[in-house]
Amino acid sequence: MKVSVKVPATTANLGPGFDCLGLALPLYNEVTVEETVMPGSGIEINIIDENETYDILSIPKDKNNIVYKAIELLYNFIGQSVNDIKITIKTNIPVTRGLGSSASVIIGGLVAANELLGRPADNAALLSIASEVEGHPDNIAPAMFGGFCLASLEEDGSVTYSKIDWPCDWKLTVLIPDYELDTRIARSVLPEKIKIQDAAYNIRKCAMLIDAVYRKDSELMKKSLKDRIHQPYREGLIKGFKELNEFLENKDDILGCVISGAGPTILVISKNDGFEKVQNDVKKIFEDFNVNCDIRTFNIENEGTKIL
Amino acid sequence: MKVSVKVPATTANLGPGFDCLGLALPLYNEVTVEETVMPGSGIEINIIDENETYDILSIPKDKNNIVYKAIELLYNFIGQSVNDIKITIKTNIPVTRGLGSSASVIIGGLVAANELLGRPADNAALLSIASEVEGHPDNIAPAMFGGFCLASLEEDGSVTYSKIDWPCDWKLTVLIPDYELDTRIARSVLPEKIKIQDAAYNIRKCAMLIDAVYRKDSELMKKSLKDRIHQPYREGLIKGFKELNEFLENKDDILGCVISGAGPTILVISKNDGFEKVQNDVKKIFEDFNVNCDIRTFNIENEGTKIL
Repeated sequence: MKVSVKVPATTANLGPGFDCLGLALPLYNEVTVEETVMPGSGIEINIIDENETYDILSIPKDKNNIVYKAIELLYNFIGQSVNDIKITIKTNIPVTRGLGSSASVIIGGLVAANELLGRPADNAALLSIASEVEGHPDNIAPAMFGGFCLASLEEDGSVTYSKIDWPCDWKLTVLIPDYELDTRIARSVLPEKIKIQDAAYNIRKCAMLIDAVYRKDSELMKKSLKDRIHQPYREGLIKGFKELNEFLENKDDILGCVISGAGPTILVISKNDGFEKVQNDVKKIFEDFNVNCDIRTFNIENEGTKIL
Repeated sequence: MKVSVKVPATTANLGPGFDCLGLALPLYNEVTVEETVMPGSGIEINIIDENETYDILSIPKDKNNIVYKAIELLYNFIGQSVNDIKITIKTNIPVTRGLGSSASVIIGGLVAANELLGRPADNAALLSIASEVEGHPDNIAPAMFGGFCLASLEEDGSVTYSKIDWPCDWKLTVLIPDYELDTRIARSVLPEKIKIQDAAYNIRKCAMLIDAVYRKDSELMKKSLKDRIHQPYREGLIKGFKELNEFLENKDDILGCVISGAGPTILVISKNDGFEKVQNDVKKIFEDFNVNCDIRTFNIENEGTKIL
């Protein structure tokens, strides 16, 4: 018995939506979970890096592996314990770049294990377990459902989530630099307290963003894709981000430029071919910082997690 | 030449929507602006308290009057100066209770003066001037347009606003206590800085509230009507608020209980006759605090400002 699951990459912390807004991208990781034939063989974790471009040696292959941890929580949730299990992770999503690679494998492991167990857990339980492992649900929800999601981790550990139709002419460009940024470092630069005016700023911009998506209003979206909660503190860690923002400020059909997750990937949202028109100039900005950027433009991923 | 304008009351700071969400209530102030017959007669400001229940003696009747100030800004905006003018304010909206009485007379004065001048200013300019006088636009926008509004004061002084359809079975009950609370005091208890987690909390709850209104989803609305930005600091100033919240927590068809504006009025949002069912128990809560409450249940006001 084995189950394989394909889960999309995600970009979270979307603009003002710190820890709550995310969307899915058509890049996938695949997780296979199987009961091992030989009882007592314990845990086996294999990682296959399909592109051989990312350092996967640092990923734990024992009980500290996040996929294993998530699966263990699922077993505990139904009152069982994990015995002999083999987990195979095929990675296509760049690691430690702010593209939700960890959320994708957590969801992949959970959905595959849940399927193996006969689906004892519903989506609500899976999201709750995944958010417990990840710490926040803004990558988790779009990894599960695809599309644009609003997700809120509640006091009781449950996740309130909502998928809202994303306008089909709003394209997503990710600029993936050739350096890593540890999420722990990106988190450590955030202050414990912020000005109440900055909080009020993000509150209204995030509300405006939801309104803009419902209205499919590009001008409103452009006004809403601003942030004072995390980007001002992180922009020093992300080479070229400030310069790119200034360059794109008044360009036609560019709706916004934000840090993807905790970085270092940058997300540009554009209308139609808005990004293509400026792509060469954008490349030059990063060349000036000696950063090699993998630039890819996508439509939003709308399927989410799929059992293969 | 004189113009009279009728403007609704408003309740702002709606739940998580600090300084950005508000809605209009069918209680009205009326402002009449007229050019005086005798040149050189200067400024004349008359205030008529139709219910004779509120202290209006403290309202300035000279150049410090906020309606006059707003009109003066409008004249400056079109390169003129105010000479002889008579302003008559008929108040029906309780003063210093958190029901947008100041926003209503500011908008009333502006719209009436703009009409007298031949409409030189558009809505965007009027909202911007009104928000400059008021300091924030969350009462201003619904006072102008009626209904449920999201309003954001931008860095350049302009106001981005949006009116979103409010479900017709969501009723609004205001509990207006028999004491006043000066907005300056209610503002002074707010801290300069707040925890980043509390900011993130309100960000996601405010996004959820917009989503809930679009979906007309009462359960989601109930989850969203929470706040960690201003209510925790102000609840000590508002007798019975904490107790009322606890009492209403799990009552059927009660969507939420929030401070209206900066208080002391409390707003309860309920579905259908959800509030009527608990009204007697609610009265008792306030009686225990020796507070006499004027309790009124309304449908949302959807017309906004009207020239009479």
